[in-house]
Amino acid sequence: MGLFGKLRRKVLDDTTPIQLVVIAYLILIFITFFLLNLPIFYQKNAKPSWLDTFFLAVSSVSVTGLTTVPLQQVLNHWGIILLEFIFQVGGFGVTMLTTVMMILSGKKISLHQRQMIQVDMNQPRLSGTVRLSYSIFILMVVLQLVFGVIFSLYFSWQQNWEHLKSAFFNGFYISVTAVTNAGFDITGSSLAPYEHNHLFLLIVMLLIIIGGIGFPVLVEGHQWLMFKLHDHGNGVFRFSLFSKLAVFFAVIFFIGGAIMIFLTEFKGQLASEPWPQKIMTAMFYSASTRNAGLQLESLKHFQTATLLVFSLLMFIGASPSSVGGGVRTTTVGILLLYLAAFIRGRRHVNIFGRRIGDDDIQKAIVVTNLSILLCLLAVLILSVTEKYSLVSLIFEVTAAFGTTGLSLGITAGLSLVGKWVIICLMFIGRVGMLYLLLLFVSKKEQDFNYRYPSEKVIIG
Amino acid sequence: MGLFGKLRRKVLDDTTPIQLVVIAYLILIFITFFLLNLPIFYQKNAKPSWLDTFFLAVSSVSVTGLTTVPLQQVLNHWGIILLEFIFQVGGFGVTMLTTVMMILSGKKISLHQRQMIQVDMNQPRLSGTVRLSYSIFILMVVLQLVFGVIFSLYFSWQQNWEHLKSAFFNGFYISVTAVTNAGFDITGSSLAPYEHNHLFLLIVMLLIIIGGIGFPVLVEGHQWLMFKLHDHGNGVFRFSLFSKLAVFFAVIFFIGGAIMIFLTEFKGQLASEPWPQKIMTAMFYSASTRNAGLQLESLKHFQTATLLVFSLLMFIGASPSSVGGGVRTTTVGILLLYLAAFIRGRRHVNIFGRRIGDDDIQKAIVVTNLSILLCLLAVLILSVTEKYSLVSLIFEVTAAFGTTGLSLGITAGLSLVGKWVIICLMFIGRVGMLYLLLLFVSKKEQDFNYRYPSEKVIIG
Ligand SMILES: [K+]
Ligand SMILES: [K+]
Repeated sequence: MGLFGKLRRKVLDDTTPIQLVVIAYLILIFITFFLLNLPIFYQKNAKPSWLDTFFLAVSSVSVTGLTTVPLQQVLNHWGIILLEFIFQVGGFGVTMLTTVMMILSGKKISLHQRQMIQVDMNQPRLSGTVRLSYSIFILMVVLQLVFGVIFSLYFSWQQNWEHLKSAFFNGFYISVTAVTNAGFDITGSSLAPYEHNHLFLLIVMLLIIIGGIGFPVLVEGHQWLMFKLHDHGNGVFRFSLFSKLAVFFAVIFFIGGAIMIFLTEFKGQLASEPWPQKIMTAMFYSASTRNAGLQLESLKHFQTATLLVFSLLMFIGASPSSVGGGVRTTTVGILLLYLAAFIRGRRHVNIFGRRIGDDDIQKAIVVTNLSILLCLLAVLILSVTEKYSLVSLIFEVTAAFGTTGLSLGITAGLSLVGKWVIICLMFIGRVGMLYLLLLFVSKKEQDFNYRYPSEKVIIG
Repeated sequence: MGLFGKLRRKVLDDTTPIQLVVIAYLILIFITFFLLNLPIFYQKNAKPSWLDTFFLAVSSVSVTGLTTVPLQQVLNHWGIILLEFIFQVGGFGVTMLTTVMMILSGKKISLHQRQMIQVDMNQPRLSGTVRLSYSIFILMVVLQLVFGVIFSLYFSWQQNWEHLKSAFFNGFYISVTAVTNAGFDITGSSLAPYEHNHLFLLIVMLLIIIGGIGFPVLVEGHQWLMFKLHDHGNGVFRFSLFSKLAVFFAVIFFIGGAIMIFLTEFKGQLASEPWPQKIMTAMFYSASTRNAGLQLESLKHFQTATLLVFSLLMFIGASPSSVGGGVRTTTVGILLLYLAAFIRGRRHVNIFGRRIGDDDIQKAIVVTNLSILLCLLAVLILSVTEKYSLVSLIFEVTAAFGTTGLSLGITAGLSLVGKWVIICLMFIGRVGMLYLLLLFVSKKEQDFNYRYPSEKVIIG
């Protein structure tokens, strides 16, 4: 082992997997920043300032979708294709991609690298995570390709097979932006043209939900399918507690969000719409605000109450170990279960026949409350530095923290301080509040202080 | 024992002290409501609607200070004197007053009544609570009388001893409204005329802080004084953990609030003021927003950021077992200590050489998070039913929940639903979120589920 090998060994021994994942995200952001400063990705003389490209780098690696420059006016086709690649890397997680690269290059994967993957995947067991990451990556790419083709053919048919190139370009872009929950808009009107195409919206919603439900759920779904296909009637397949909770809370927040949007906007935007459109719009925004950030119409026409509901959903965010950000559904969910248990005079939180571990409850409490404090601080700072209304500031902050990326149109007009606040929120929102906390805990302390209970659930 | 005695016995046996306290508050509200509907307390033809007098009844019993009608235009002098009496009853707590009544009437106090007093006083030991309540009541009344005379003489001197009656009327009112933290304004300009009278403001701040620091702290302060006077050098006086925490967090939030107000308003209202005035204004609002609700100028001129800081301080509120409301300082403080302990990788919350019990931490978490949810829900409802800006709605909600009673002037214009939302918030804010939770827990369950740990601290 040479000097470099020893140094590498020393760094890996002293660094926790969480630290490595965060460092990998940072490196990825700087590579993206470098690439986004190359003029070849921009329309003639349209390259934005250093700060704006850095903002775009963080926004695309965290698959948020906020941007200080109108993408359709500055990026050329290569720039948009570059973004689509960044969404893959940012969405599926650095470590997952590292794994796939390793497998493809035929190299052996060390225990340390496996641990890193485990942390990023939030898988309680090491065994098989490498193989599983690989199959998820394949699944996600195939999903984007298949629906890319479907959307492309649909657009081509719509335009009487005349503008094939642009139909395929847009078809694939929408598929990529939906599955990775990126939400960046390259047309200036997002999904507004398809507002009344319910089948189209339902498919987009499905892709958004698949991206945000959490990779472990997809893995177990895949395992369950294999089990059903190969094992005929003997034995029982058990879903993990995490998968059950992730699906349960995704359903709860989806339905709850849709009902709240429906109620708050009933006399507003939805008043003149027929009933199926009312329901479809409410459902679409409930799915989109927690993860993706795709929109049907200008958000400025919504009621203040609806914008607050959007903010709440964005703040909650997606499942852990998904393409999404925010506090995470299971984290908020476990805190709510804990509050409900206290109100009912129960000592423990029981769900699906299992008891949630005290450590997980503790993490859920800490992550949620620190996230509230963080967003409160951000709103307070922005209310000093920016001239916009309070509701648009709350909206921008929660959109950044939830990596949803919706905006009431104030991103481009943010001050220098404001842009940096949003950059920090997007990074923390994607990496997760818990990682940020554990980042400064050394390897020894982590082993000592953070016991993993037997019924481990993924928190934030 | 007759039939009535048996019935009374049965009710008392089945009712928890918390339920009795809440019932007593409700009865007090309805008596106040009845009194406030008597025309003798109003200027000619100025009696407000039933809803407005009910609003005023809840607001005065909870010593909040929000009102849907301008008091100086509707109440006569007798009406204001009535309010001053209600502030005593509402501020010192129903049970405390019951105790005093009992003592004065020479009746024996039952164990059950002692328990009730204990709950309202949040005293961990039963022994001596009756005697203590009595001395606090005397202390508070004397305080109001002494400073009433001082303020009256000061006002008389200001007006060259010409308008003695109005000077004494206003002097006593300011003393009462400061000590009871009522904050109702009867002049239309609150304390604006004394904005530059620093000694006056300091005395008012002192009275506000005495009212909001918590009765147990006053009791122990009194005991400490007696100890120092009678015991010369032998033995050590120990303050309870609660008193230490209450004073500690009162200081932290007072200084922290003043610094934040100073920073957010530095380029706003305070820009043209000389430095001593800047500091005095920031300190005054930091003290007033958490409890009293007295103000120096129209709040409409403050920056959005400052109004958010005010909202935060109002939400936190005063100490438990004081004249104030809100989540309560020690409750928020213990949650913050808990978060800090987690960040530093510690398992337990240690402060002042004691460990905070798990039950108290649990209550602090539940009370704070449910309070956040409650205020969020209230803002959401108001954003649907009212036409005012988001910042004024957040301000109104936190002012009601914190029983501070400041307003950006929207109270009178609230819709029917809006008024009822504020009424509920004032009631819950004063009674406390924990009482509300424990209200529906029966006596048996309470004994079983809510153990009192050895190092008991008062939560919300
Ligand atoms: K997004
Ligand atoms: K008040």
